[in-house]
Parts: sequence; C-alpha cells; structure tokens
Amino acid sequence: MNRVLRAADALPASLAAAFMLIVVSVLPASAQQALPSWNETGAKSRIRDFVKATVTEGGEAYVAPVDRIAVFDNDGTLWCEQPFYIQFAFMLDRVKTLAPQHPEWKTKEPFKSILDGDLKAIAKGGEMGFVELGMATHAGMTTDQFNQIASDWFAAARHPKTGKLYTDMTYLPMRELLDYLRANGFATYIVSGGGVEFMRPVTEKLYGIPPQQVVGSTIATQYAIVGDVPVLNRLPKVDFVDDGPGKPVGINKFIGRKPIFVAGNSDGDYEMLRWTTAATKPGFAMIVHHTDGDREYAYDRQSPVGKLDKALDEAERRNWLVVDMKNDWRKVFAFER
Amino acid sequence: MNRVLRAADALPASLAAAFMLIVVSVLPASAQQALPSWNETGAKSRIRDFVKATVTEGGEAYVAPVDRIAVFDNDGTLWCEQPFYIQFAFMLDRVKTLAPQHPEWKTKEPFKSILDGDLKAIAKGGEMGFVELGMATHAGMTTDQFNQIASDWFAAARHPKTGKLYTDMTYLPMRELLDYLRANGFATYIVSGGGVEFMRPVTEKLYGIPPQQVVGSTIATQYAIVGDVPVLNRLPKVDFVDDGPGKPVGINKFIGRKPIFVAGNSDGDYEMLRWTTAATKPGFAMIVHHTDGDREYAYDRQSPVGKLDKALDEAERRNWLVVDMKNDWRKVFAFER
Repeated sequence: MNRVLRAADALPASLAAAFMLIVVSVLPASAQQALPSWNETGAKSRIRDFVKATVTEGGEAYVAPVDRIAVFDNDGTLWCEQPFYIQFAFMLDRVKTLAPQHPEWKTKEPFKSILDGDLKAIAKGGEMGFVELGMATHAGMTTDQFNQIASDWFAAARHPKTGKLYTDMTYLPMRELLDYLRANGFATYIVSGGGVEFMRPVTEKLYGIPPQQVVGSTIATQYAIVGDVPVLNRLPKVDFVDDGPGKPVGINKFIGRKPIFVAGNSDGDYEMLRWTTAATKPGFAMIVHHTDGDREYAYDRQSPVGKLDKALDEAERRNWLVVDMKNDWRKVFAFER
Repeated sequence: MNRVLRAADALPASLAAAFMLIVVSVLPASAQQALPSWNETGAKSRIRDFVKATVTEGGEAYVAPVDRIAVFDNDGTLWCEQPFYIQFAFMLDRVKTLAPQHPEWKTKEPFKSILDGDLKAIAKGGEMGFVELGMATHAGMTTDQFNQIASDWFAAARHPKTGKLYTDMTYLPMRELLDYLRANGFATYIVSGGGVEFMRPVTEKLYGIPPQQVVGSTIATQYAIVGDVPVLNRLPKVDFVDDGPGKPVGINKFIGRKPIFVAGNSDGDYEMLRWTTAATKPGFAMIVHHTDGDREYAYDRQSPVGKLDKALDEAERRNWLVVDMKNDWRKVFAFER
C-alpha cells in the first residue's frame, strides 16, 4: 500500500473531502448493513446473492463494472402511482393554472371535466383526449421554462391520500436498493413511460440519479433564436413513447448497453424484463407487487393504472423475483413511523 | 489524513488496483504534463486556463463536478472525415458485400455508381439517394447483428490515403484533451451527426467514451420476439438526425444538461456551439480548423464534407477558440513519427 499512502499524502488539502468520499464509495456495501428497510425474506436474499455473485472477481457470474447497468421503472416501482400517475396530477394542476388563458376549455373535453373536478369523466376523452391533455400542459414553452414549471410544482404539490409532498412518496426500500447497487459499482438508470423532462428536475435529489441517466418519453423540441439567445421550444408533438415495447427501444437508444438488472411493477415493463433477462450476461429481474393496501395500495391484474397481469403470470417460469411489498418491506415510505 | 490512511488499510487486496486508479484519477492532471501533443501556443493556454478556473474551488468560474459536461463532435473533430466520412466508407463496403443479394443494384442509383467505383456520380442521387443508401446498409438486421457488422468492419477497413486502420485516424491532441478533461472531473460525450450504433462499438476503445455517452443520429428500431428470444430490429426509417439544430435537441434529449465545454469543426456544430456558450454557466467552445494539408487535410469554407463557414465568421465575436491544426498541434495522428 505504500504507493497509495504516498498518493494520499500528496493530495492537496482541498481534495481531502472528495478523496474520502471516493474511498468510502469504493468499499462494497456490507451485506449486513445494506437494505435495512427490507425484511429478512427470500427477496432480500436473492438480491444480495445476485449482487455478491456479480462483484466476485474470478466467479462464474462476475460482471465487469462497466457492464453493471441497472434500470428501474419509476411509476409504481420507485414512487407511488396511485390513485393516479404523479404526472397526471401535474397535468390536472396545469389545466387549472392555464384555464384563464383558455376560455374554450369550459366546454371542451377533457378540459371541461378536469375544471369541473369530475375525474371519472376524463377517461371518456379516450387516448386522443389524453394526448391533447399532455400536449396542452407540456408544450408551448422552452425547455428551461418547463424545467422551472416542473420544479415549482414538485416543491408544493401534495398526494391526495397522505397529504405528503409527491417527492416524499418514494419507496424507501427501493432507494436503499439503488444505493446498494451503486455501492457495488452499478450505474443506475430510470427507464420510465413518464416524460423525461418532468422527472429530471427531481431524480437526482430523490434517487441519486442524474438527468443523463433518466430515460423516458419525450416531446419534440426545436432549436430557435429568441433575440440573440438560443432556446429549445417544446412542440405539441410526441417524439417517443418509452413504454411497453418502447422500453427496450429506449434503453438501446439512450444507454446502448443491455442492463443486467431490471426492476418494474407492471405489464408496461414486460418487454424490458424479457429483454434484460434474455441477455447473454446474467440478468436479474424483479417485479414490485403492490400487496399492501394499508401502507400503500393493493392492486395488480385489474388496475387501470399499473396493471400487472401477463408479467405476473410469467414471473415464476422466467425466474423473475416478485417482491411482495407487504411481507418483504419493513417500511414502504420514509415518513412512516 | 488519518482516516484516509485507515480506509486505505482496510481495503481488501483485490481492490488495491482499483483504488490506485481512483487516487490517480482524482489528482488533477498537471498542467505541465497535460496535452503533450499541443504546441505551447495560445490555444493550449486558453484551454488550460478554462479548466483551471472551472476546478478552482471558491473561484468565480468554479463549476461543480456534476455540471462538468463536455461534448465533442466526432467527424473532423475527433477523427478524420476526409476524403469522406468514415461512415460513408462503411456504406460503400456494405453495398459491395450485399450486392450479390441485390441484382437490381446493377442498374439502380446510387448503388450502380458505387459498384462501378464512380464515387463522383453518387452525389447525383441527391439527398433521397443518400437516405436510401443509408437504409439499405444500416437496416434489416437486429441491433446485435449490426453491432457485430460494424465491429468487424472497423477491425479491417483502412483509410484510402494513409493505409492505416480507420480506428488509427483519431487526432492524438483531441484524445489528450478528452483525458485532460476527464482527469479534471468532466464527463465527456460525443454529439455527432453519425449513427449512434455505428460509433458505439469503438468509442470506448478509441476515446474512453462508453456507449451511454455517445449521442448521435438514430434509426427506428422495433421490439420483436424471434423464437422465444426478444430482439430489436433495425427498420429502414430515420428516427433522429443529430446534426445542425438537431445537436442541441440531441444534447437536451439524451443528456438533459447544458454542457460547459463544446468542441466542433464545422457549421453542423454551429447551433451546438451557440447553445453551449449561451448557457448561464461559463461555457467554453472550440473549433478544430483543418489547416494542415501535409499531415492531414486543409479545408473549410468550400468543403463538401465538414464545411466551416458561418461558425468561422462568428468565432471571434463569440469568443470561440479556433484551433489551428498546423500551428497548434505538435502531432496530428499517433502513428506519425
């Protein structure tokens, strides 16, 4: 270790703190300390066993750090998606904010139902109504402006059941899992059907995942000069839908490497689960199964949001870990006592 | 430093090598040792001054490591783009390889001219002919298959003037610049008009840039199950053109953060240069000016490939560094004696 010690001594004082952080992050997270909000069940063991095998040099299942890519769905996997997607709540609030500039919305669906507070009627607009809602609330500004709009909304908007900020509605065990994987050399990515620019303002703070590691649905943008300043305008046009079969497409497009770890919770993640576990390298897949109606919500096959049916049917056959939130998680949210 | 030393002692032996690498990479590259293939001219000083200011904690121009994003054009900025784009050479070779399966190409442009070896006639096909050429040579296989095709081609294809492998046609001073920026905490990205899946198989080896840090033009892909195996099929359809005004769009889409350092060489980089230097954070922009007809090629305003006109006109006014290859670079290619 002599050369290491000399190198450490040679460090300018200003770098000492950064150096310490790096030393700590190099040390593999102890299997005993990791994942404290997970109960000592089979789910936790399987995750630990996979990670241990992956990082054991010389072992059959060893994977070089550069290939340790882990991808996570967001809605229902990292944060709560009930009673509706968080981004849908954002859309509803945006419609109310923008309504004074759109008198025509008083008689036009789906805007009329939103302004009337009749959420059930919104579905009547069908898919086209939903796309129109998305464009009306997500386009027509620059990327910098939208970033600010989303950031401001997250700073104040609250979940209708818990009254907590939406940014508090993340699953503590999953955040621990992200930390655990990173401590073991994994790069962690979000691969979500949600809008990439809706998530990016908060993912670093919530999950330790920087903007460039967020893959999601995108809206078309266009370069323009305003005054003498270049901007990107958000156009009312869908560019890419990162859901279902779009998820492997998105992973390939943005990351360009097959992940070896994938976590999802719905049939929207099915293709991503298939693709990751079919890789030539060892692939680990897990499904967060929402079984806890007391601490969170209980739903799967019949749920309009986060429907989990086909992926649940095939999980055992394909060796996908199904995490039972009620039994496998000691805590769901950090704010629980 | 006591805690650092204890941490070092506690490291398992297997981690010692990794630890050493990290210690070394934390140390800022000495300004004296960095960029050895750059002459001691103003260009080198300006780059060094910018980097020093960026990493100096407490300084006015300090930028946190998380925001140290550097983006590089590829063709003509990191590797040679004359007498034609390297990806164009790939297309020509692909046409010859695939010709036996396409008897109709004997009479159809631009394929006929390629098979006849009449490169000048290819341009007659115009833009549509070029798109058709791209699709015929880049689509119709899975992503894994294309990766292999590109890798095999790079292993053997040689530059028509130097006789060197195309993978040897990278600019040594630019590779040193990538290393220097990374040693100072920058994340380095390619943002190229080239096909992302054409570049990704070689960027890590050539530049130390992993696949997930390569932004480029993309072809549409589609998820499919073949037998019981999921694949992504490459479709004959352009998904995204990462050139000109598409470059800021691509940076925003893939990286989601404004870079603070940008390097390009042609008007195809103009918008990316504008966008980076208009950021609120200090932005550094440089243009590689091809002035050396002996060691490489001399071209700018009139060149059909890599035309540099508007960006050159505005460089001084916008404080963009223009690197004069002939005077600022001691060496262009590593293979030079």
